[in-house]
Amino acid sequence: MEFEAFTASELAAYLGAIPKVRALLGEPDDLDVAEVGDGNLNYVYFVTNAKAPQRSVVVKQAPPFLRLVGKAWPLSCQRMEHEVAALRRFGALCPQHVPKVYHADSKRFLMVMQRLASHCILRQGLINGITYPKLAAHLSTYLAHTLFYGSDLFLAPDIKKQAVSAAVNVELCRITEDLVFTFPFEDHPSNVYSLALPLSVLERLRTNEALRIAAGDMKWAFMNRAETLLHGDLHTGSIMVNEEETFVIDPEFAFYGPMSFDIGALLANLLLAYFSRDWHGRVDGRDPAAYEEWLLAQAIGIWNGFSEQFMALWRDHESRSERRFIGGQTESRAAEGYRAHFMRRLLADTLGFAGCKMIRRIVGMAKVAEITRIPDAQARALIEVRCLRCAEALLVERDTLTDIEQVAMLARDILRETLTHV
Amino acid sequence: MEFEAFTASELAAYLGAIPKVRALLGEPDDLDVAEVGDGNLNYVYFVTNAKAPQRSVVVKQAPPFLRLVGKAWPLSCQRMEHEVAALRRFGALCPQHVPKVYHADSKRFLMVMQRLASHCILRQGLINGITYPKLAAHLSTYLAHTLFYGSDLFLAPDIKKQAVSAAVNVELCRITEDLVFTFPFEDHPSNVYSLALPLSVLERLRTNEALRIAAGDMKWAFMNRAETLLHGDLHTGSIMVNEEETFVIDPEFAFYGPMSFDIGALLANLLLAYFSRDWHGRVDGRDPAAYEEWLLAQAIGIWNGFSEQFMALWRDHESRSERRFIGGQTESRAAEGYRAHFMRRLLADTLGFAGCKMIRRIVGMAKVAEITRIPDAQARALIEVRCLRCAEALLVERDTLTDIEQVAMLARDILRETLTHV
Repeated sequence: MEFEAFTASELAAYLGAIPKVRALLGEPDDLDVAEVGDGNLNYVYFVTNAKAPQRSVVVKQAPPFLRLVGKAWPLSCQRMEHEVAALRRFGALCPQHVPKVYHADSKRFLMVMQRLASHCILRQGLINGITYPKLAAHLSTYLAHTLFYGSDLFLAPDIKKQAVSAAVNVELCRITEDLVFTFPFEDHPSNVYSLALPLSVLERLRTNEALRIAAGDMKWAFMNRAETLLHGDLHTGSIMVNEEETFVIDPEFAFYGPMSFDIGALLANLLLAYFSRDWHGRVDGRDPAAYEEWLLAQAIGIWNGFSEQFMALWRDHESRSERRFIGGQTESRAAEGYRAHFMRRLLADTLGFAGCKMIRRIVGMAKVAEITRIPDAQARALIEVRCLRCAEALLVERDTLTDIEQVAMLARDILRETLTHV
Repeated sequence: MEFEAFTASELAAYLGAIPKVRALLGEPDDLDVAEVGDGNLNYVYFVTNAKAPQRSVVVKQAPPFLRLVGKAWPLSCQRMEHEVAALRRFGALCPQHVPKVYHADSKRFLMVMQRLASHCILRQGLINGITYPKLAAHLSTYLAHTLFYGSDLFLAPDIKKQAVSAAVNVELCRITEDLVFTFPFEDHPSNVYSLALPLSVLERLRTNEALRIAAGDMKWAFMNRAETLLHGDLHTGSIMVNEEETFVIDPEFAFYGPMSFDIGALLANLLLAYFSRDWHGRVDGRDPAAYEEWLLAQAIGIWNGFSEQFMALWRDHESRSERRFIGGQTESRAAEGYRAHFMRRLLADTLGFAGCKMIRRIVGMAKVAEITRIPDAQARALIEVRCLRCAEALLVERDTLTDIEQVAMLARDILRETLTHV
């Protein structure tokens, strides 16, 4: 079918013909349709009953091309199927943190989902210096449940292997393989360097052997370790929050990959917020220190909360099923020892992925707003240097940073040491 | 279609109707058919032209059940498709070491392949104390080519991901997951312990935390790391040899898994042969020392030859394609440093898998003939204890054994230290 974007009245009529959606929204004639997509990839609409504004949904539609460019840049529409499948799976595992999918239409590459009207994008909230008291608890719960239940620690081997094949996501994995793990380490035309960033710092990304080896390890892990169904792009722009609730949205990069990739993405974005806080805090006339510590506390709370809940899910499942992953029917010192070892390795991988994700946000094509919005080139470069220094340490020292508190100390040290010079 | 095993004349007629096979074998009336399968899993026939015995093929047919038990134990016939696909792929990569497939029939779960009439099974050759001057060179070439060309180091990411999905092999992977990585470490009814093996040794397999953690790591790696198309069961019974040639047969366990698994299986079987040599050498009235050293030299030669050729294929490919896996168009110290690091990690994983493979052959269901044929229970137990000691060291010390010569020294030490007592 040739792709045509809906007009407002076409979309209202389409939604009115789906009984479940009509029950949510009311009569087609009452619907307001507003296109709110950022124009890059997908069409996104808010559809609201004008007479009862709380009756509202989001419609997301993937055209078979890059919207920004048009039909000259074809893209597979399967990305919408991936996103729907992942939302449904994550929603089944963790309904309180995943928007509901009310309807999906694989022929029109479209889905109708829950409107999160009172929530804002976490990245924006962090830029605004807002604290969310339940954030760490919510995200650690989301991570523990989604990462555990997709893995061989829970699923039967045949089910897991089918799930891996079903979740193959060539196009979007390719984006990550290139933009996160390859281009930032070479002189690639897609890279974007900020004006005042010293050349020596860029040179270091290409020539530091320990860093390159570590980044190579992470790329290999990303491409080869089909451990669980990941979100695949879990930065702070993929999270919607308010005081009470936290939702993880937009899993179009979902695929079976290394568990630590999602946790690492989140950690990276908290650290990017941490290092850029100094500037945002100062221009707002507030002392940034308290919020910086709140950000580090979120990183610590997310890892520790995740780790505790993941281990608890694992113990419970093995106790119920009377089968330990490492063998044996009863609990043993070896079984618990293996779990602790597994979590240590997971933290090391998390730090490695966090390092790669930080680097790509500094020198790669896709940036983060907390940094690009800094108009002072020198101030921005100082923050970028700190981020790269932290990223390098995370990558190279990931096996010796054995708990998350050490990571927080590392971040504090880098902030202090480089406070006055690039 | 209901499965019926062929009669001799039916098989001759069937083969006569395939022009390519008829050209190889001659007239159906001239064919001798001999069923030579071991009766466990498949039907295997040698089909030979009685008037020209050099005109001969092997026919292998997978019934949709475990042949040993019958229709009450169904098995997927896909195993034959896996085997055919793997033979064709490996044959394309390394034709000199893989038997030719002349014909495959997916409806009859059957293939017709090259007869290796002047070759014997390597395991039997090793029991007989025969040296094969080209063995290490051949097997290292086979490993380097098959493991490199299936991986992300060579394949485009989309092709690789399709290949992973196509090679999913649930049933036979499950056998390995259970029999190699799980049951040997628990009190499982399928385990078989030899009479004089001390209970303390079995207890150690269940309670030694470092060993259990290491084995858990290898199980996780086996189940999650889709690095390349593996043979999947590369023991010395899957290799046919003579003075001049080496062929790798029976890849029905083929799937996308960790590269080091095939190398580890081979190393494990060479070490099992090494530790049992003392008995076989002595009963044959020969000094076992020279052959023991020859066996260790094969292990060293296979790893070092594999490592050199794999790195050479990798360098060549990256030089030709002007793309380094870690990024960058030109060769650099970092690119070469990553390759060396990659090979060190591969060796560590190889040792871990070798350890698991040795343990399963001592305490698991499937044994090796070099040990089960030892009628003296005390002598056998002594050998088994040495094998388990070596396996444990390989698993627990795999990150500190940084070259294959150290592994040979470890094996020699274990042989000496435990020469006189269990």
